[in-house]
Amino acid sequence: MRAVILAAGEGRRLSPHFSGPKPLVSLLGLSLIERNILSLRECGIKTFTIITGCCSGEIESYLGDGSKYGVNITYLHNSDWKLGNGVSAFTFHKDYRDGEKFILTMSDHIFELDVLKSFLKSAENITEDEILLAADTRLQDVFDLAECTKIKAEQDRAVILGKNLKDFNAVDCGLFAGTKALLQALSEAISQSRYALTDTVNILAARRRVKLHFIDGFWVDVDDLPSYRYAEKVLLKSLVPPKDGIVSRVLNRKVSLKITKVLARTGITPNQVTFLSFLISSVSAALFAAAYPLLGGLLAQLSSIIDGVDGEIARLKFQKSNYGALFDAILDRYADFLIVLGMAYAWYSAAPSLPVLLVCAAALTGLPLSMLLKEKFHALTGRPFIPESHDGIFRYLPANRDGRLFIIMLGGIFNLIPLTLIVLGAITHIQALVRLYNARKLM
Amino acid sequence: MRAVILAAGEGRRLSPHFSGPKPLVSLLGLSLIERNILSLRECGIKTFTIITGCCSGEIESYLGDGSKYGVNITYLHNSDWKLGNGVSAFTFHKDYRDGEKFILTMSDHIFELDVLKSFLKSAENITEDEILLAADTRLQDVFDLAECTKIKAEQDRAVILGKNLKDFNAVDCGLFAGTKALLQALSEAISQSRYALTDTVNILAARRRVKLHFIDGFWVDVDDLPSYRYAEKVLLKSLVPPKDGIVSRVLNRKVSLKITKVLARTGITPNQVTFLSFLISSVSAALFAAAYPLLGGLLAQLSSIIDGVDGEIARLKFQKSNYGALFDAILDRYADFLIVLGMAYAWYSAAPSLPVLLVCAAALTGLPLSMLLKEKFHALTGRPFIPESHDGIFRYLPANRDGRLFIIMLGGIFNLIPLTLIVLGAITHIQALVRLYNARKLM
Repeated sequence: MRAVILAAGEGRRLSPHFSGPKPLVSLLGLSLIERNILSLRECGIKTFTIITGCCSGEIESYLGDGSKYGVNITYLHNSDWKLGNGVSAFTFHKDYRDGEKFILTMSDHIFELDVLKSFLKSAENITEDEILLAADTRLQDVFDLAECTKIKAEQDRAVILGKNLKDFNAVDCGLFAGTKALLQALSEAISQSRYALTDTVNILAARRRVKLHFIDGFWVDVDDLPSYRYAEKVLLKSLVPPKDGIVSRVLNRKVSLKITKVLARTGITPNQVTFLSFLISSVSAALFAAAYPLLGGLLAQLSSIIDGVDGEIARLKFQKSNYGALFDAILDRYADFLIVLGMAYAWYSAAPSLPVLLVCAAALTGLPLSMLLKEKFHALTGRPFIPESHDGIFRYLPANRDGRLFIIMLGGIFNLIPLTLIVLGAITHIQALVRLYNARKLM
Repeated sequence: MRAVILAAGEGRRLSPHFSGPKPLVSLLGLSLIERNILSLRECGIKTFTIITGCCSGEIESYLGDGSKYGVNITYLHNSDWKLGNGVSAFTFHKDYRDGEKFILTMSDHIFELDVLKSFLKSAENITEDEILLAADTRLQDVFDLAECTKIKAEQDRAVILGKNLKDFNAVDCGLFAGTKALLQALSEAISQSRYALTDTVNILAARRRVKLHFIDGFWVDVDDLPSYRYAEKVLLKSLVPPKDGIVSRVLNRKVSLKITKVLARTGITPNQVTFLSFLISSVSAALFAAAYPLLGGLLAQLSSIIDGVDGEIARLKFQKSNYGALFDAILDRYADFLIVLGMAYAWYSAAPSLPVLLVCAAALTGLPLSMLLKEKFHALTGRPFIPESHDGIFRYLPANRDGRLFIIMLGGIFNLIPLTLIVLGAITHIQALVRLYNARKLM
């Protein structure tokens, strides 16, 4: 399926706050239209037609032919863009291939990936004489309801649409699956001098040809500064993985999302952030070894926080890669090793004895076991190991990385190096043996 | 597809050497017919009809309804089994469902799994009026060619078959895909008092209805003591994984296959062997710690050898399991940790110093890295990491488990504990960093 993105309007309500055309307004490191293109690419769409009007030159030179995004982009210019977005949408008829279904959306709307995925799935099932429209019935949660186009729906069909509708039960999310019927209705509306896309949708709605797809995730029409801020907020919130460890959830994410918000605007890559986190761990190790446990502990916790940022940026800016995940996993192990070794070095320097060697060995060997068991389980079964459900009651053992580094921070703050190493050795090995025991039932 | 297994004959040539009926003769821990059932089960066949004659009671009480193998077995008795195997094969007509294709094989034939898999794939494509026969054209490699049924083939069709054929270019492997045509021809042959299966196949061959599937792997007709010994040999050889490490290939497998040959006859499970290998490692660690490096080193190498036996038995007796693989992987890591710690303990006891702590830490942290990288790569990409091809020139670094334990053995024999730990630390970390670097191109 091809996607058509309307990028012809001016965006007057946002323009006082940003320079340049609205589709190119940057939101957390990606322009609005780039985020649309990359989101749709994640759903398998590789061919885009962008309808330009105002500022067509700037948009075309910014996005190019799409090769830098791994997609194909062509442009259609609508010189009558001021008439209304129906005219812009109709411009696509020049490029339309008979029988084709296409996605139609607005350059300034942001959708959660799962919303797009389920919408595309529904779009496969519409017939040639109808269109599909994404609609949201969660009216109390809709951002800036007053500005939305309302829908009166009967079952999964739209009856009538309008911004000032009084009797409505859903709102229009600005995401369509179009067919030949849409282009014909656009032509019909334009011939009646009705230039808004909503006019056309109303023509089809009157004929019960507008099927609705009710969405479940977030979407935002970025139209003004409050909606821009709201979009930032929900996008950042969406970066938290559903199965985060307790220290991550309660502490690390609160800080890491703030760091991500800043770093996303720069050109820093996720792998560079991974390396930064490793460097901070190395400094933490050196500080422990040099008998500055307080600073060592605090830096260990900082590296734990930064360790979340690489993944957040990768998800936010569509920069996820298998190599990045491997690089992160291995550097994390080395970071863990160095910090524990730094602590053991400090302990040994102060009181050399055999127990230091044994406790250090227990802690060092325990560190990689959590990952070893999870990855082997994943490789063997094809299913990820989910500590929160697979570890049973032992999921509260702080033996995953966020928990371990938190313990190290506490050990540094209270200068309890031997105890910290003993606790680390104990909980990591207990977790490993419990996982090995539980796996019998899970595999 | 259902499978029909002929188990009606006496097996006179093998009976002087074994007690009980021939299909129940034990070969490396499984009876001949069990191996057939389990091999076919691995190929997806879950329903079996066994044709019994001589000793039907013993066979039925041994195999039961198949539930202990996770399959369904029914029996058909041929009281005229002495007439010939064509009569036994025809017994299946009582149970035949119109239009069905079925596999027909002999209880005393052994096939490599890949042979069965590719045969079953070919069998899907035969038509209702023909049969498929597995044939081997590698005449110089066929075991006991004199005893084989020869085939004169033209392209992929059999022209004529016979034990005493002079002009032939293939031999009959005793594996058929049958259709209604086979049962009709059996009936025709029997009405002419031609009772051997080969007689029936000749009727169809004369009509060019015997399609041949040329096999590429091993098969054996276990008919007498020499062929029994040959079957043992090729089965054991087939247990060596194609991508074994160099120490495994050159040294360990030569011993482990001998141990497997003995242990396969007992009821010991692969997981019990895994645990045995771990116990031997623990004793090795204790001997190192107690300053008996020679014994410690030799036991480390023995545990490395035994570490191959669990997988060999699992493959040989169809006892492979995901849990077994996980259990083996984690116990191996613990075994490695203990042995290295035993060595470090000995070194520290003799000469306590900070370098012992640092070298011990380097070795301990290096040990799990090989597995960590391999499993993470596998989990992320869905493809296994193959050291022999993915490690490039560094595949010769003895940093995989067989290599590491061999180095430990040498270190024990020559009593070079510090050097051994330094080498282990160095090669494991070099391998990890090289893998991390190479993975960039592989993912």
